[in-house]
Amino acid sequence: MTRLFNDPAAFADEALEGFVAAHRRWVRPAPGGVVRAAARVPGQVAVVIGGGSGHYPAFSGLVGQGLAHGAAVGNVFASPSARQVRQVARAAEAGGGVLLTFGNYAGDVLHFGQAAEQLRADGVNVRVLPVTDDVSSAAPEEAHKRRGVAGDLVVFKVAGAAAERGLPLDEVTRLAALANDRTRSFGVALGGCTLPGAGEPLFTVEPGRLALGLGIHGEPGMGERDVPSADETARLLVDTLLAELPAGVEAPAGQRAAVILNGLGAVKYEELFVVYRQVSRLLAAAGVEVVDPEVGELVTSFDMAGVSLTLCWLTDELEPLWTAPADAPAYRKGAVTAPVATGDEPSTAPVDTTDDTPLVADEDGRRAARRALAALAAVRATVDAHADELGRIDAVAGDGDHGIGMRRGSHAAHEAAADAVARGAGAATTLDLAAAAWADRAGGTSGALWGVILGSVGSALGDTGRPTPATVASGVTAASTGVMRLGKAEVGDKTMVDALVPFADTLTRAVAAGAPLADAWDAAATAAEAAAAGTAELLPRMGRARPHAEKSLGTPDAGAHSLALITRAIQQTLATKEVD
Amino acid sequence: MTRLFNDPAAFADEALEGFVAAHRRWVRPAPGGVVRAAARVPGQVAVVIGGGSGHYPAFSGLVGQGLAHGAAVGNVFASPSARQVRQVARAAEAGGGVLLTFGNYAGDVLHFGQAAEQLRADGVNVRVLPVTDDVSSAAPEEAHKRRGVAGDLVVFKVAGAAAERGLPLDEVTRLAALANDRTRSFGVALGGCTLPGAGEPLFTVEPGRLALGLGIHGEPGMGERDVPSADETARLLVDTLLAELPAGVEAPAGQRAAVILNGLGAVKYEELFVVYRQVSRLLAAAGVEVVDPEVGELVTSFDMAGVSLTLCWLTDELEPLWTAPADAPAYRKGAVTAPVATGDEPSTAPVDTTDDTPLVADEDGRRAARRALAALAAVRATVDAHADELGRIDAVAGDGDHGIGMRRGSHAAHEAAADAVARGAGAATTLDLAAAAWADRAGGTSGALWGVILGSVGSALGDTGRPTPATVASGVTAASTGVMRLGKAEVGDKTMVDALVPFADTLTRAVAAGAPLADAWDAAATAAEAAAAGTAELLPRMGRARPHAEKSLGTPDAGAHSLALITRAIQQTLATKEVD
Repeated sequence: MTRLFNDPAAFADEALEGFVAAHRRWVRPAPGGVVRAAARVPGQVAVVIGGGSGHYPAFSGLVGQGLAHGAAVGNVFASPSARQVRQVARAAEAGGGVLLTFGNYAGDVLHFGQAAEQLRADGVNVRVLPVTDDVSSAAPEEAHKRRGVAGDLVVFKVAGAAAERGLPLDEVTRLAALANDRTRSFGVALGGCTLPGAGEPLFTVEPGRLALGLGIHGEPGMGERDVPSADETARLLVDTLLAELPAGVEAPAGQRAAVILNGLGAVKYEELFVVYRQVSRLLAAAGVEVVDPEVGELVTSFDMAGVSLTLCWLTDELEPLWTAPADAPAYRKGAVTAPVATGDEPSTAPVDTTDDTPLVADEDGRRAARRALAALAAVRATVDAHADELGRIDAVAGDGDHGIGMRRGSHAAHEAAADAVARGAGAATTLDLAAAAWADRAGGTSGALWGVILGSVGSALGDTGRPTPATVASGVTAASTGVMRLGKAEVGDKTMVDALVPFADTLTRAVAAGAPLADAWDAAATAAEAAAAGTAELLPRMGRARPHAEKSLGTPDAGAHSLALITRAIQQTLATKEVD
Repeated sequence: MTRLFNDPAAFADEALEGFVAAHRRWVRPAPGGVVRAAARVPGQVAVVIGGGSGHYPAFSGLVGQGLAHGAAVGNVFASPSARQVRQVARAAEAGGGVLLTFGNYAGDVLHFGQAAEQLRADGVNVRVLPVTDDVSSAAPEEAHKRRGVAGDLVVFKVAGAAAERGLPLDEVTRLAALANDRTRSFGVALGGCTLPGAGEPLFTVEPGRLALGLGIHGEPGMGERDVPSADETARLLVDTLLAELPAGVEAPAGQRAAVILNGLGAVKYEELFVVYRQVSRLLAAAGVEVVDPEVGELVTSFDMAGVSLTLCWLTDELEPLWTAPADAPAYRKGAVTAPVATGDEPSTAPVDTTDDTPLVADEDGRRAARRALAALAAVRATVDAHADELGRIDAVAGDGDHGIGMRRGSHAAHEAAADAVARGAGAATTLDLAAAAWADRAGGTSGALWGVILGSVGSALGDTGRPTPATVASGVTAASTGVMRLGKAEVGDKTMVDALVPFADTLTRAVAAGAPLADAWDAAATAAEAAAAGTAELLPRMGRARPHAEKSLGTPDAGAHSLALITRAIQQTLATKEVD
């Protein structure tokens, strides 16, 4: 378990501060994360990585010469926000453009994707590459849906070495994508992990059992068996990876491969070496030539007990990038030459992302903003009341941070909205600011989606004029469409979308039939509740199914459930006398 | 707990094999451990380190340019044998002499000390430096009795960098000793560890409690308290070390210090960073300038949960040695230049330590050898029967490996003696070979001491002529003297000596009084049993007492207890009809 902390809510920020204090030779803080301490090299592509905290050395430990240029650092097990990614990328980029690369988790995909849009708007050339090496998280024909685990390191290393050579952005991206296409990982777990301050483990594995393909946040894997010997574990890992060779590799014999045997946290070095002894023998027996193997802790999950094996089937292009020197806090290889100082030190001042457009609200718009603020207060209260429950539900299939993220987001949104209302803002501005605050403070998937919801509703309401029930319904419909697009989910995938779509449809139909807003919202909230409950019905499809469909294990989807709770809480503010 | 292994008895050997397979760039196997893969530099001092397995990256992970030249690798938590140390030193030395440096544990002191004697006999110039940084293991006025923990790294690093500069052996030794004198560590533990295959933890810390100064094998510390916050933990560590400055450092302000915040295994990186954040602030507030801090796992103890802080108060001489480049499997810093290849690759063939002196035994000597073999069979049987009990007793105050070590040693001794008897050897040769086998296979303190006992008795018996009871008694007395000298222990220290001395005295007196050997031995065994039971009587004196006196916690000393068991088992072979 995680034992040493102060305020658990401050854990990730304090860990980052201590990490920087210990590694000033390599990194310096940037808003949202860290960038290299060394001067930027003008024209060089910046490789910007990132993800949640709790996986050290991923991601901050991999910033340095020959590796990443910057890392956006999210809260514990939560993606950094788009704003964080944008800030780190702006501090790292040196005129050659930015490659954003990260593990393929919904929250990271959302926030890095939004950051890419923002950076393009800033005039920065950007490419996006999610890492998808975990073979147990989706079938080969849906490899693009796979999660990223220790294969992150291979992709980051290849990208960093390519950037160090001065290659252009498209070429760096091509090589990194080639590395990703040829990298496969498979992991097993013997025990779960406990987050700082948590009373019980986020997830567990029964003593004496081995969970196959269990994700680094406890995402369901492919099954269980009794704990095997170290040699049998090695065979399981090697056999699984040799059974799925990438396109163009017809047989293992004669291939050269980068190999990572990764400890998840509680499996210690000597155990890893005992396993690696047999991995090395089995690969040799299969005719695979191992190049610069890494045996240690490269992607961890606090005190999770587990081990994963990663193979990258090298090509003549990839091998020199894998073996090139690197000098990062947690990854050092060969001799690096100190970079030429340019005097162009990365800025540590935040990029100004505040919107200073003058407020244009009228009295109707300000009244609508006050009602929105009252609704956000109700949202905050219901999230507070249900935060533990949301965390528990999320822990069944996800990473258990849903309650924490929703609290951070709803509090930040309410605070931003209160400020906006105090300054006389209209509904659109108030909800836009609330949306940005929610997304930035919450991070994770839910943060990005609630940002979209608030922003969409705000845009429909506008800053002037009196919103009609139809305006509200159109905003909710826009939110529903936006969430489906950004979350890449459809009805039936057992996500928030399962509740949001019927909510929007019911609201729209009731409003069109002439119902007052409070009544229409009531009916819609009831539909959302029924649909959220329905996300619990599907039986789990372990391993080889669509990731979304794997989620349900008799408990509802956490995102759908919180949407239902929130729509009900808002309905109660609509049913009361109008706030003024 | 440790979960991934094959045969637990093979764990250390298999881990070493896997370690070497993963790090061929840096190390190659040598009999008894590892040496650098790079060619030796003629005339350079060889820094040879070592200790038990289970503490990675100590010790094999610290072999490489700028650090150690070789590491002798013992069994789990057991020192390597003198033979191992000698073999590694012979493979590493390049004409400049050898510095043997290691943590100050009884077993290591014995075996490295014996190896030094053997190396001198081989014509190698040798210096010996035990590391003594753990302030909780003895009072400042007995600093030479302190254990070595993460301060090992500082001493090894300084020695390695000094050797790399081409300094002579005395100068390398002087600088390493200076580093040791100025290095202090203090650790706290939140949980114990479980050895490979063990059914229960070797030692534990009650949940929610923090053990102050608990050793990395569970050696008793200075007390307990409730688990504090990370910031309070940092203050405890810093305050303890600032309270005991080395000679010549009058105040922390204005000093420069190498700093290591070490995780013992289950305390993970982010937690270490949260603690380091406050360590860094407190040191800055005290006016200490931190130089090249290390925050990570440098000396571990499997899955032990704990953290230690090490400060080395640098001088102008020490600082450049601490900051010099190094390139080892688990410690890399700065850019190292590849060494000049000399074609002088270290030999991986064992140094020939077999004795091919022709056998000179007569029939009396061979008969005595057969009786010695019968006694060794009884020893083996009683050790097998009591191995679990011995481990449990040892775990109270020691590292719990006594049962394992005694088994390995007694089996090896019996096997070697059987070979010798089959070849027609006399008692002296038989017991000498048995002594060497016991010490080499068992490692640890008990291995060295039983080597002395068997060797002493064998020398007294000789290879020719019929041994008298007086000869046997004189051998036992020599054994008793030898153990006191080598173990640096006296009667009352609650060690094996407490039982061995009355055994030898009683035997000598009874034999002098004309008793037959079987009767005299019976009386002596009874005396040993009473004395062994007496080692349980002293109350524990935590922390600041003599290390030996700390050991007793209501259970007898494991070494004294096993001596009593063994003398009784031998008595029964004497009481039966003579073997022939």
